[in-house]
Amino acid sequence: MTDIVRIETNQRMSRVVKAGGLVFIGGQTSADQTPDVKVQTAKVLEKIDGFLEKAGIDKTRLVSAQVWLADIARDFGGMNEVWDAWVPQGCAPTRATVQAQLAAPELLVEIAVVALG
Amino acid sequence: MTDIVRIETNQRMSRVVKAGGLVFIGGQTSADQTPDVKVQTAKVLEKIDGFLEKAGIDKTRLVSAQVWLADIARDFGGMNEVWDAWVPQGCAPTRATVQAQLAAPELLVEIAVVALG
Amino acid sequence: MTDIVRIETNQRMSRVVKAGGLVFIGGQTSADQTPDVKVQTAKVLEKIDGFLEKAGIDKTRLVSAQVWLADIARDFGGMNEVWDAWVPQGCAPTRATVQAQLAAPELLVEIAVVALG
Repeated sequence: MTDIVRIETNQRMSRVVKAGGLVFIGGQTSADQTPDVKVQTAKVLEKIDGFLEKAGIDKTRLVSAQVWLADIARDFGGMNEVWDAWVPQGCAPTRATVQAQLAAPELLVEIAVVALG
Repeated sequence: MTDIVRIETNQRMSRVVKAGGLVFIGGQTSADQTPDVKVQTAKVLEKIDGFLEKAGIDKTRLVSAQVWLADIARDFGGMNEVWDAWVPQGCAPTRATVQAQLAAPELLVEIAVVALG
Repeated sequence: MTDIVRIETNQRMSRVVKAGGLVFIGGQTSADQTPDVKVQTAKVLEKIDGFLEKAGIDKTRLVSAQVWLADIARDFGGMNEVWDAWVPQGCAPTRATVQAQLAAPELLVEIAVVALG
């Protein structure tokens, strides 16, 4: 099992798992539940930056991302504004963005990523 | 193509695909459509255990999971209770859980996982 | 960074990313917004064929797919009809299909895949 590295693991989930050369970061949401998708997106991306750092890499290594928005008609533009500013030039991952109700009604955005270790 | 192993493949999908050192198990639902998320989650996780075994591994090798719930406000707690008891201590994958209507209205939960071979 | 290959990259996303031996294609939708899931599914799969070709492979290398439908009760059958005809015999990926509202109300289907390079 030394080939799987789990970071911030509890009984339910790990925040980060390194396996097979890839770094998986699960769906992250904002602890700051201000009802503004730009605020929440910025907080989520901060968390992802922190987890990438714990995995020994950074956002230039992003491979793939999934974004869930609680209200895609209202919040797609605001999320993208923060996202586009965060992605390093020339390093954008693949992405899929769909609407989904999240684990608490206050949550407006959740993002999961895969990166290369 | 000997580097891709497909298990229980039909014209629409494979239940399991091994590739690049990883084991992918597609979205699994419960054949028992009792309207109780704990029953359905237990059945889904049984199926996943079986597919992991067919791939030659077990749930200690989980890397990443996605959970879809038909009613996240009602069923998040029940699903988690069964999930938490199923995950081997110290082996939790990353996870993302969102609400989504599934392929039939009786289905309350669907889970897909990635593991390391 | 020569170990990550990004194809059709802009500031928001790449259409394709090759990393760790895998080929990731993000969520693709149809430019033809005819309100018919079969038309849109065919267009999405054409796009995916094109991106697989740009990655130097084809649909026999599919590992995993996610399908999102805007109306799963209405469109599951139509999407599957086009999908089943498209998948090469014996090469079906794992798959998960759920309902989700997509980035524009005209979009009926979105598909993301992972393949082996």
